[in-house]
Amino acid sequence: MPPFYLGLDLGGTNVKAGVTDDTGRLITKVSVPTGSKPSDLAPGLVIDRMIAAANQVIGTSGIARSDVAAMGILAPGQASLSKGVIIRSANLPLWKNVHLRAKVARGLNLPGVLENDANAAAYGEYWAGAGKNKKLDNLFMFTLGTGVGGGLVYEGRVVRGSSDFAAEIGHMIIVPGGEPCGCGQHGCLERYCSGRYAGERAVKRLAASPKIRRTSSLGKIFKEKGTFTAADITQHARAGDKFARESWEEACRYLALACINVCHFIDPQMIVLAGGMSLAGKFLLDSVLKHFDREWWKMTRPTTKISLARLGNDAGVIGAAGVAKDAFDRKALPQIGR
Amino acid sequence: MPPFYLGLDLGGTNVKAGVTDDTGRLITKVSVPTGSKPSDLAPGLVIDRMIAAANQVIGTSGIARSDVAAMGILAPGQASLSKGVIIRSANLPLWKNVHLRAKVARGLNLPGVLENDANAAAYGEYWAGAGKNKKLDNLFMFTLGTGVGGGLVYEGRVVRGSSDFAAEIGHMIIVPGGEPCGCGQHGCLERYCSGRYAGERAVKRLAASPKIRRTSSLGKIFKEKGTFTAADITQHARAGDKFARESWEEACRYLALACINVCHFIDPQMIVLAGGMSLAGKFLLDSVLKHFDREWWKMTRPTTKISLARLGNDAGVIGAAGVAKDAFDRKALPQIGR
Repeated sequence: MPPFYLGLDLGGTNVKAGVTDDTGRLITKVSVPTGSKPSDLAPGLVIDRMIAAANQVIGTSGIARSDVAAMGILAPGQASLSKGVIIRSANLPLWKNVHLRAKVARGLNLPGVLENDANAAAYGEYWAGAGKNKKLDNLFMFTLGTGVGGGLVYEGRVVRGSSDFAAEIGHMIIVPGGEPCGCGQHGCLERYCSGRYAGERAVKRLAASPKIRRTSSLGKIFKEKGTFTAADITQHARAGDKFARESWEEACRYLALACINVCHFIDPQMIVLAGGMSLAGKFLLDSVLKHFDREWWKMTRPTTKISLARLGNDAGVIGAAGVAKDAFDRKALPQIGR
Repeated sequence: MPPFYLGLDLGGTNVKAGVTDDTGRLITKVSVPTGSKPSDLAPGLVIDRMIAAANQVIGTSGIARSDVAAMGILAPGQASLSKGVIIRSANLPLWKNVHLRAKVARGLNLPGVLENDANAAAYGEYWAGAGKNKKLDNLFMFTLGTGVGGGLVYEGRVVRGSSDFAAEIGHMIIVPGGEPCGCGQHGCLERYCSGRYAGERAVKRLAASPKIRRTSSLGKIFKEKGTFTAADITQHARAGDKFARESWEEACRYLALACINVCHFIDPQMIVLAGGMSLAGKFLLDSVLKHFDREWWKMTRPTTKISLARLGNDAGVIGAAGVAKDAFDRKALPQIGR
């Protein structure tokens, strides 16, 4: 019988654990709070919760523990992935140089790997989501959340780069000298197409223009609440509001330009759009494809398929299990406790 | 004794052939005209010249033919690299779907691979140039010529992408809605930092400004010849002319932004600057590094080393031999005649 894999997704809010079979099918999953107050987020306490969640999910899966071959841990923040160490994390301020992989592996007596969140989610979609049964060997994924993340799979493996910073697509400079980004650069992609920043741009524009406040249906929300969200923009754009639609199209155009740059850089078989903005579904996809076709070169037809993510919030857990399977198959799992 | 490798560089002007040892040392090389008039450039005639050049260079190398393990061919234009076919090439208008690899391999009775020019040159620098003895496993190279090309080596192998279009960095869109490019896109990198286009931009600006014509030392050349070149800009920038320096710095800044984007995308150990613009040497490198440091994010210090190319015009022949060695070592050489 082929083995099973454990995926652990360490988030700032929840720890998720799941068991998958060797095709990426999620057998069972569990989600527990990471911690309820800052002192609860000390590394030892959180690691104990991760181990408990893992034991619980294996227990309820009906799978013998000896049939689980490896575990993958997905974590946010800056890490040394090959060493399995979390260097620091904005969501877990007490964590400094925590040997997460070794501690969880010892606690579970199971070898494992550490992967960053966007890479693991990309691997999940490659293995068991948008890329499933497509005979792909590469894929690029955009995670369109508050910020914009990226993950790259090439020749069936996650591309980490030489200092674990590959596929940081949200900080690709797309407008030289453009808007200042929290990272210290100017003109980063995420300032132009993430829900949060595209929303902020639209709020500023509407606030500055009495005419837009009067003519756009977003004006009413702004008048009531003093602001509006990216979700409001999407909803009003769908409903046909001109200003909302322009704001939406602008974000989609920047995303399309980023897709073009990804194609010229790595020429992938597939680009997957994931994260909050991708919940707009076909409305997003159609708009991105329209701008892509307009802006793409005349030299060749595009060969990259652009698709929506399929796994939703499970991409992380499934992907974490997937990178564990990949390391197991390649006999590249570090020893337990290392 | 370790085997030797043959590299063939098919250019629009010259066919170059070289033999290297298994460390990338060029033992001997030869260069012959590709053809003197358009009808001379028919595929059969050029292929005969390539085979003759290969036989000649092996003959003069003092190496037994049986000690040459494989050959690599580097060619410009659009190709199906895995099939060894040149689909079309701007420099060789008579070439349509030419099975170049199979024909040369049969003519020499030597198995081989076909690689595109920028990829092969990048592999050459990785193997035997700027990356030599650096224990790298990845590298990105910019070829700064009339246009801007790119080549990527990752985990010791050329990254071709899924339709042989990876690392087309010159067509990364760096200015949305920017200057129209010959490729049909707007705002491509090569319109902002290649010698040719940076030169054209400067000529236009100077032509439009009586003040610049009067105050810049380039004004005199412009008055005499009606134009000036990228080489003139470099020379006058070095000599301290303000306008020439601004034009130079602008091109270097765009190149630095592209380097930042390469770092965020693939996080390489090394970026190599090659091609005509790189002949400016330290003057180029210092300026690119200055702009890189100014524009790079505040999150982490850069870990990518930016270096000048070392192999000059030999990068292609050496790289072609290198990709042959790589395929030989991986037992991935196609059969002769396939």
